[in-house]
Amino acid sequence: MSSSCSACRGGEMEVDSNKEEMLQRKKNAVLVDGIILNGPITDSKAGEKFVEEACKIIMEEVIQKAADVTEKVCEWQPPEKLKKLLDLEMRDTGEPHQKLLQLCQDVIRYSVKTNHPRFFNQLYAGIDYYSLVARFITEALNPSVYTYEVSPVFLLVEEAVLKRMIEFIGWKEGDGIFNPGGSVSNMYAMNLARYKYCPEIKEKGLSGLPRLVLFTSEECHYSMNKAASFLGIGTQNVYFIRTDERGKMIPEELEKQVQRARKEGAAPFLVSATAGTTVLGAFDPLDKIADICEKHGLWLHVDASWGGSALMSRKHRKLLHGIHRADSVAWNPHKMLMSGIQCCALLVKDNSDLLKKCYSAKASYLFQQDKFYDVNYDTGDKSIQCSRRPDAFKFWMTWKALGTTGLEQRVNRALVLARYLVEEIKKREGFHLLLEPEYANICFWYIPPSLRKMEKGPEFWDKLHQVAPVIKERMMKKGSMMLGYQPHRGKVNFFRQVVISPQVSREDMDFLLDEIDLLGRDL
Amino acid sequence: MSSSCSACRGGEMEVDSNKEEMLQRKKNAVLVDGIILNGPITDSKAGEKFVEEACKIIMEEVIQKAADVTEKVCEWQPPEKLKKLLDLEMRDTGEPHQKLLQLCQDVIRYSVKTNHPRFFNQLYAGIDYYSLVARFITEALNPSVYTYEVSPVFLLVEEAVLKRMIEFIGWKEGDGIFNPGGSVSNMYAMNLARYKYCPEIKEKGLSGLPRLVLFTSEECHYSMNKAASFLGIGTQNVYFIRTDERGKMIPEELEKQVQRARKEGAAPFLVSATAGTTVLGAFDPLDKIADICEKHGLWLHVDASWGGSALMSRKHRKLLHGIHRADSVAWNPHKMLMSGIQCCALLVKDNSDLLKKCYSAKASYLFQQDKFYDVNYDTGDKSIQCSRRPDAFKFWMTWKALGTTGLEQRVNRALVLARYLVEEIKKREGFHLLLEPEYANICFWYIPPSLRKMEKGPEFWDKLHQVAPVIKERMMKKGSMMLGYQPHRGKVNFFRQVVISPQVSREDMDFLLDEIDLLGRDL
Repeated sequence: MSSSCSACRGGEMEVDSNKEEMLQRKKNAVLVDGIILNGPITDSKAGEKFVEEACKIIMEEVIQKAADVTEKVCEWQPPEKLKKLLDLEMRDTGEPHQKLLQLCQDVIRYSVKTNHPRFFNQLYAGIDYYSLVARFITEALNPSVYTYEVSPVFLLVEEAVLKRMIEFIGWKEGDGIFNPGGSVSNMYAMNLARYKYCPEIKEKGLSGLPRLVLFTSEECHYSMNKAASFLGIGTQNVYFIRTDERGKMIPEELEKQVQRARKEGAAPFLVSATAGTTVLGAFDPLDKIADICEKHGLWLHVDASWGGSALMSRKHRKLLHGIHRADSVAWNPHKMLMSGIQCCALLVKDNSDLLKKCYSAKASYLFQQDKFYDVNYDTGDKSIQCSRRPDAFKFWMTWKALGTTGLEQRVNRALVLARYLVEEIKKREGFHLLLEPEYANICFWYIPPSLRKMEKGPEFWDKLHQVAPVIKERMMKKGSMMLGYQPHRGKVNFFRQVVISPQVSREDMDFLLDEIDLLGRDL
Repeated sequence: MSSSCSACRGGEMEVDSNKEEMLQRKKNAVLVDGIILNGPITDSKAGEKFVEEACKIIMEEVIQKAADVTEKVCEWQPPEKLKKLLDLEMRDTGEPHQKLLQLCQDVIRYSVKTNHPRFFNQLYAGIDYYSLVARFITEALNPSVYTYEVSPVFLLVEEAVLKRMIEFIGWKEGDGIFNPGGSVSNMYAMNLARYKYCPEIKEKGLSGLPRLVLFTSEECHYSMNKAASFLGIGTQNVYFIRTDERGKMIPEELEKQVQRARKEGAAPFLVSATAGTTVLGAFDPLDKIADICEKHGLWLHVDASWGGSALMSRKHRKLLHGIHRADSVAWNPHKMLMSGIQCCALLVKDNSDLLKKCYSAKASYLFQQDKFYDVNYDTGDKSIQCSRRPDAFKFWMTWKALGTTGLEQRVNRALVLARYLVEEIKKREGFHLLLEPEYANICFWYIPPSLRKMEKGPEFWDKLHQVAPVIKERMMKKGSMMLGYQPHRGKVNFFRQVVISPQVSREDMDFLLDEIDLLGRDL
């Protein structure tokens, strides 16, 4: 194998061919089973060159284009066609670097540009250059955060970030762990509340115990159901509490349901309130809910995965009034604060090492007690994972770069832009706001001209239900923007606009409404 | 605020100062609550420049140094001192780019170089240029893998990779999902087995049911205990099966324990065999265990998180003989196949959509059924997560680059190098092999000269127990290499060497033994 071919193909040299030549080049060569053991078989120079060339593509095709509204948000292809456009097959022999770089181009081309200023489809969006750099560093270093000996920096960073998040919640002390998502954070909290309620469950399990019951609003995230089934509690034992017209849990209804559970002989143990619901962006009245939890001795968890970032704003933190009374909080900086997927903390008020007691398994190959440093820094035994990514680092980098005031400005501006959009919706014919938003979710119907005079009867709602999916299809195929829609609790399909990124401007809000009208006026 | 200052500080402009000037520059400016809504407030040019400069640091300080054995594996600092060396504090105001770049340098400097050729501390190591590029692309695109509309490419890639992994297991068909780690994969399997055993548990929970019991070897990963407690089964209901002197589950003991559980009136539902145990690298006899599972109607899960990659080698796949009879398999390409943390698949033989039935929560805001494409591609409802990273893509890129034969060669060479080390250990005075390894874990004691003549009594073992921690401390402080040690099942502290990366050579194996002797000969 010639050296030029090796450089072209890349990272590793073929070892079967030209063994003799390689052997001659090496002193004391050891050959076992036809494999040369001397020296690395990685061609690091070719590998580095490949990384450099790929980084150039990433910079040009992803990062630089993220600021350009004239680029498409997506280049839509249906699944079967996209399979043909991409060379997905994994073969016996590898591909040369030039082919791999083309694959990188294709992957980027057909991927949705979630950092495009007009990607409004989910609860994350935009590009944050600081967290992006942190993520590149993380990937290059490839750490796993369980012991101080392998992740000294990232463990200290996590500790520092958790400490500040705890301050923003308003606790004097606390504990926490970054984990892969709001859903998993909610699972952590549910298990922790159960452990606090009855530590024996860790060893003995739920068999033979009374039925554990938890309470959450009917607007909660679907992960509450997933958690209840995964943890062996059962979805039937999630008691959903009615909400008011704005999507907020009604405290009196919670009180009734707790009493109902007690009467049934069940064991209530947890209330999960939501601060920033997924669809409507509603905030449960935490202070009143905390009163009920106190009265009944229930663990109060707040799923602030989406709304938690309002804590960074002196103006808007009142949305979470009472959160300091929670026992645990889920808060995802990867949403409103743009830390990159995933960056999610579960925070716990308890400071008696409850997290560790609940989760520890004391693996002797990781958590040796005879290490030469303070093994309290080996925090991995608090986790349900073994390998764990250093997600706190991404948030830390952005926080360092913008400062608390910079983060606050982001939240404030997103919410002002949301207000701007609301006012525009109210002004425009054919647009109808579902409810006055509290946060960055703006839910509205677009009513095409053909339906505007129609009586609001079953036929109207049936037709309106079909409008949003068609507009969505058209915007995807055009690639002009991405915006979510859904039916929700008896309401037919409506759009949910989410404002997050500082790249987004008033002009994008105007464009959004113009574009919906353009795409849907013939319906 | 001058534009040069803005460029220096970076991504976002201050909006409070010089509002008038900015307003004049903008037509139709809208100012609400002192916040300008026109145009993006992100300074994208400065942001891009920052990313470019940081990438240069990453290339020079991490990627290029990964190939250099003369660099330190770590620059050890104790926690309290490292806190002072790093500027961890998050302040009200942000830092300028130059300061942030210095922070990046510091983070890299004090982090452990897990891609250094002499990092042998965990079940992952080395640098793979292809998966690294895939990871950079992923971070830049920031996707979440739940619906085809937001992750078209990554969903298809995941499907393609799962299909090939299923082929290597030897199943005709199957299903699967990438998830954050082997521990989580094991949890998925445990819940799936439970669902198969009694689908009602999803809704009703475990309360009132007979005690569910699962079986795994005493050498299994600690995540089995974590999973049992998390899922409400309880750690007492994990029946640990005795292993032979090589760490393999004894099938006759499994049979006995299943019968014991039945006699107790418990409900056995799952056997979790291990293919590649964490410490010893042992492979349970899957074929014999499958016989017992078949006889008793038990779900067979194989935790092949570490050993699964031997399936890529025609020579070594016999270690997993019988794996095709498993109902589910956990397999982490981020370990032996170097895909970057984390890259872990749970694979399921069932093809009746069991994974979806077990895990779905049917969130209407994500999994709308009236989409314009085939919503079977929206696989997110199979997951316990909501946001999920495109981990399959990292493995796919390496597979494309090296081909199946390239991956096979990596596995073969790692295992030949492991054999080389074993033979060297046998030759050298003061080194004692614990057992003949089957895989890439080589477990051995180093016996310093002062202990070599001593009788193998309690005093000897007590003194030997103290040797590895001291050598570990010395190697960390010197930064010459990193290698794990642990006590294990009655055996005093021994070293566990793990061979993975193609960067590693015979010379590194020689160095390892020389270095241990150098660091420990005075003990």
